[in-house]
Amino acid sequence: MEIGIIGTGNMGRSLGILWAERGHAVFFGSREPDKARQAAELAGRAARGGTNDEAARFGQVLLYAVRQPPSEVFTSTDVLDGKVLIDCNNRETPEGFAFEPPSRPSLAEKVASDVPAARVVKAFNTFAQEVFELSPLPLKEYGVSVFVCGDDSDARQTVSTLAEDIGFVAVDCGTLRNAWMVEATGDFIRLLIADRGRGPYATISVRELPRADSERLGGRKSGYK
Amino acid sequence: MEIGIIGTGNMGRSLGILWAERGHAVFFGSREPDKARQAAELAGRAARGGTNDEAARFGQVLLYAVRQPPSEVFTSTDVLDGKVLIDCNNRETPEGFAFEPPSRPSLAEKVASDVPAARVVKAFNTFAQEVFELSPLPLKEYGVSVFVCGDDSDARQTVSTLAEDIGFVAVDCGTLRNAWMVEATGDFIRLLIADRGRGPYATISVRELPRADSERLGGRKSGYK
Repeated sequence: MEIGIIGTGNMGRSLGILWAERGHAVFFGSREPDKARQAAELAGRAARGGTNDEAARFGQVLLYAVRQPPSEVFTSTDVLDGKVLIDCNNRETPEGFAFEPPSRPSLAEKVASDVPAARVVKAFNTFAQEVFELSPLPLKEYGVSVFVCGDDSDARQTVSTLAEDIGFVAVDCGTLRNAWMVEATGDFIRLLIADRGRGPYATISVRELPRADSERLGGRKSGYK
Repeated sequence: MEIGIIGTGNMGRSLGILWAERGHAVFFGSREPDKARQAAELAGRAARGGTNDEAARFGQVLLYAVRQPPSEVFTSTDVLDGKVLIDCNNRETPEGFAFEPPSRPSLAEKVASDVPAARVVKAFNTFAQEVFELSPLPLKEYGVSVFVCGDDSDARQTVSTLAEDIGFVAVDCGTLRNAWMVEATGDFIRLLIADRGRGPYATISVRELPRADSERLGGRKSGYK
């Protein structure tokens, strides 16, 4: 797949390198093209680097790893039409990790309203950069969730496949209206990692347990089928 | 420990039975004392049943499993002074699971402001009743998180011990101002269980991965130590 990385900070660089290692064609973009080319060098021969505009033109899938709205990042947002745009952003960390509840529109909904012709998917915002160093193995052993939501189900599927390529387990969270929950989970894991001392290898994941064969607790089911 | 169960619905009945099975003295309370006595019969000889007032007087630790504020549940809330009051409630599920973001005060903060002399702890709101049927074994194998927050650290510790008694892993989430995150996690898992089809054995947990020994991704750490 052709993947454009918009913003070559920690998240963009790490994910771009991992996807390049798995055989995808990756173009790193940055406001500072030299930084993008340095990331491309780390990623090897399948990667190139340049401007954000060039990265956006290159990719069918774009990782959006900058905080500004797309209309301030690209010369024209027409280049995003129809593309899968992965928003991996979290809110700024407040003083003392004193997060207030999120509101709607969520960060991802704001991106989507800025570029309505793009297919925006929220994903990759619920772990620290250090987790990527385990990819794809031994990361695969741990079944770490990537929570994925977006209004276009094909786009969600594409992003889920890219998550599984590098050792994560994709969790389908439905439409973009649910992005506030995924973003709140990003706040929560950062609180646990940094404020509660769990460290950068703490992750949060969904797991299905085996069905119980007992009904000793009175047998009234939760109604969740 | 003496544990009072306030409200003998699914949550109260299940947790009360499990704690009684682990050797705690449990008193079930209900607006309908006959229902409470039926739960006590399921729980065996270490358990009794009666009114909510009686259950509150009995316990050092109280599971608060009703939706009304304490001032509407007890004849006098003086009985709660100094007690550990575990709020395990979630918001009502909206039509179509279209959860809006939470606001503050959270449910747990509202309980705490209603009874400021109680030591309120948020916990046990992030899984379906079916998960309890696995307790304590094989539940213990799966390391399912119980997210615990409250302003009194001794009270958090007490609740964490009670969670671990029945096979969960307690996750210290800090003070009650963070309860909105735990409640949002309760919304999120209900969305996944019911709307996204994951079923009642889907759980959400924190796990720490092993430290990576590679630094191939450029080595700039997240800053989370």
